[in-house]
Amino acid sequence: MAVKKRILTGDRPTGKLHLGHYVGSLINRVKLQDEYDTFVIIADMQALTTNFKQPEKLGQDIREVAMDYMAVGIDPEKATIFIQSYIPEIAELTMYYSMFTTVNTLRHNPTVKTEAKERGYQEMMYGFLGYPVSQAADISIFKAHLVPVGQDQVPHIELTRKIVRQFNELYKPVLIEPDALISEVPRLIGLDGGSKMSKSLNNAIYLSDKEEVIGKQIRTAVTDPARIHPTDPGHPEICTIYAYHNVFNKEFVPEVTVLCREGKIGCVACKSKLTKVLNAFLVPIREKRKELEAKPALLDEILIEGTKKAHKVAKLTMEEVRDVMGLNYFKKQGN
Amino acid sequence: MAVKKRILTGDRPTGKLHLGHYVGSLINRVKLQDEYDTFVIIADMQALTTNFKQPEKLGQDIREVAMDYMAVGIDPEKATIFIQSYIPEIAELTMYYSMFTTVNTLRHNPTVKTEAKERGYQEMMYGFLGYPVSQAADISIFKAHLVPVGQDQVPHIELTRKIVRQFNELYKPVLIEPDALISEVPRLIGLDGGSKMSKSLNNAIYLSDKEEVIGKQIRTAVTDPARIHPTDPGHPEICTIYAYHNVFNKEFVPEVTVLCREGKIGCVACKSKLTKVLNAFLVPIREKRKELEAKPALLDEILIEGTKKAHKVAKLTMEEVRDVMGLNYFKKQGN
Repeated sequence: MAVKKRILTGDRPTGKLHLGHYVGSLINRVKLQDEYDTFVIIADMQALTTNFKQPEKLGQDIREVAMDYMAVGIDPEKATIFIQSYIPEIAELTMYYSMFTTVNTLRHNPTVKTEAKERGYQEMMYGFLGYPVSQAADISIFKAHLVPVGQDQVPHIELTRKIVRQFNELYKPVLIEPDALISEVPRLIGLDGGSKMSKSLNNAIYLSDKEEVIGKQIRTAVTDPARIHPTDPGHPEICTIYAYHNVFNKEFVPEVTVLCREGKIGCVACKSKLTKVLNAFLVPIREKRKELEAKPALLDEILIEGTKKAHKVAKLTMEEVRDVMGLNYFKKQGN
Repeated sequence: MAVKKRILTGDRPTGKLHLGHYVGSLINRVKLQDEYDTFVIIADMQALTTNFKQPEKLGQDIREVAMDYMAVGIDPEKATIFIQSYIPEIAELTMYYSMFTTVNTLRHNPTVKTEAKERGYQEMMYGFLGYPVSQAADISIFKAHLVPVGQDQVPHIELTRKIVRQFNELYKPVLIEPDALISEVPRLIGLDGGSKMSKSLNNAIYLSDKEEVIGKQIRTAVTDPARIHPTDPGHPEICTIYAYHNVFNKEFVPEVTVLCREGKIGCVACKSKLTKVLNAFLVPIREKRKELEAKPALLDEILIEGTKKAHKVAKLTMEEVRDVMGLNYFKKQGN
């Protein structure tokens, strides 16, 4: 039996996940977990790089994320879901990587620059500047072969590859240079029609939203502003609802494209069709989530077990790392 | 019984220690270990900030340092001697501190700037820039009240105090703001008479140097260059040998001051007197060191036991740190 290749994937725990997460990564993870040995990191330490003033919500946010994972079909029997901060070896490896990663490499990292700008940081925190080094440790401590990412995360994978190459050259080649598995799925637009779906922009439909909430949300979604009357010809290519049909109601797309352009379907009717389809899609996810909500002890057990398993793997890698660096001072030679 | 206050002190393991270390810190530590609960860190992780290309010598260097500690009288029954890299919680705490420590604070740290310049760094490594944050973790994870330092290390203690204050304000006041215990002992000059005694300048007399080596070293030491003949009047204030008499042969100082100024003692005779005194001083140190060299298993046991004890303390602090940050997600409330 061939050994499965390993994938590392995950999220910062920022609370409940939305349809944007589903389209952007979750659906992909559910597919990948059969083919790959999947490790799913809940990156609470990384969340602190931007959230150190309010860590008290992290416990709940971690559970929300984990419940959403399992509700959409990530199976803890196939995928190891674990909590980053419970594995201090990641911080340890980050320190070692820091020894040979220059400040300028990090300052010029385009993703770090963009994110700092977006967040309006006047002053860069040392930990924020270095989070790509920590990410390199996340990935390589689990010896992941592949990391599914969006285009904006590619610089981080490049840095990880560079760090791993440097480590392997400086000491011995025990670490794996990971490849980026670039997702082709486009980003889902938010309800406001202006930006991608995002919690912070308050334009999201959550996987755990109730039936009545979905209807309300869809009714507020921005469509073609040129359409005043249902009979006005529409421009589906700029319509949020059309974008959602394209993802969640594919069969209807050829028909609705014509109907909209010819002014033969109004936005209200079109939204109502989407609402039905979305709710049908979300029924099993909601049900699975309710089950998990009813068993908080089981949820915690899954997280604790996943974290234990990941910790074991991380410890083994660190043992090797310390070996090749010559830091296992008390180990008998030849052992 | 009043609980003793705790001190954190230590060194980067750069190999055998010399008389400069003895005068600058070791003698002080031997005195302090009775009054204070002393933790002595062998900072191998910090050594990697400047030495990541050759970590293979660290194991031997750690043992040399530890033997010198004990040879001069640091007593492992009173002082906990431990190895930094075996305590990943220090790396973990460093990560948390990094979240709220700005890059500019570190860039403007005078000691970091001076050291980078001295080492001729073209490019600053991320880990090197951040070593004062790691030092703050070293100190505060052991809840040290006092840190004996030289004047050049004061900015680091200031930063530690600032970080601890910030942590205590952000979360809960569980950490201790340490005070610098500034050493009044002046730096010992090197054999070249130009700079302080230092391994890298190759101007040092080592605690473990053999009797014959001491004689040779002292003979090469720079004295008053104006003295050609033993009868020329000397200027003890610029003489290396006089500086050593001042530290290791205090009773002789009033006499030699006059003899030298009046040209009544030659440098050769003066050096010979110092050699005798130094050798007498080093006899018990050498003997104790020989004992330790003959029992490598005992030495390792002392280091392992000290590290275990320190690890226990560090874990307890991290438990508290995680508690007040709200990161102990699976701990029942009220426990």
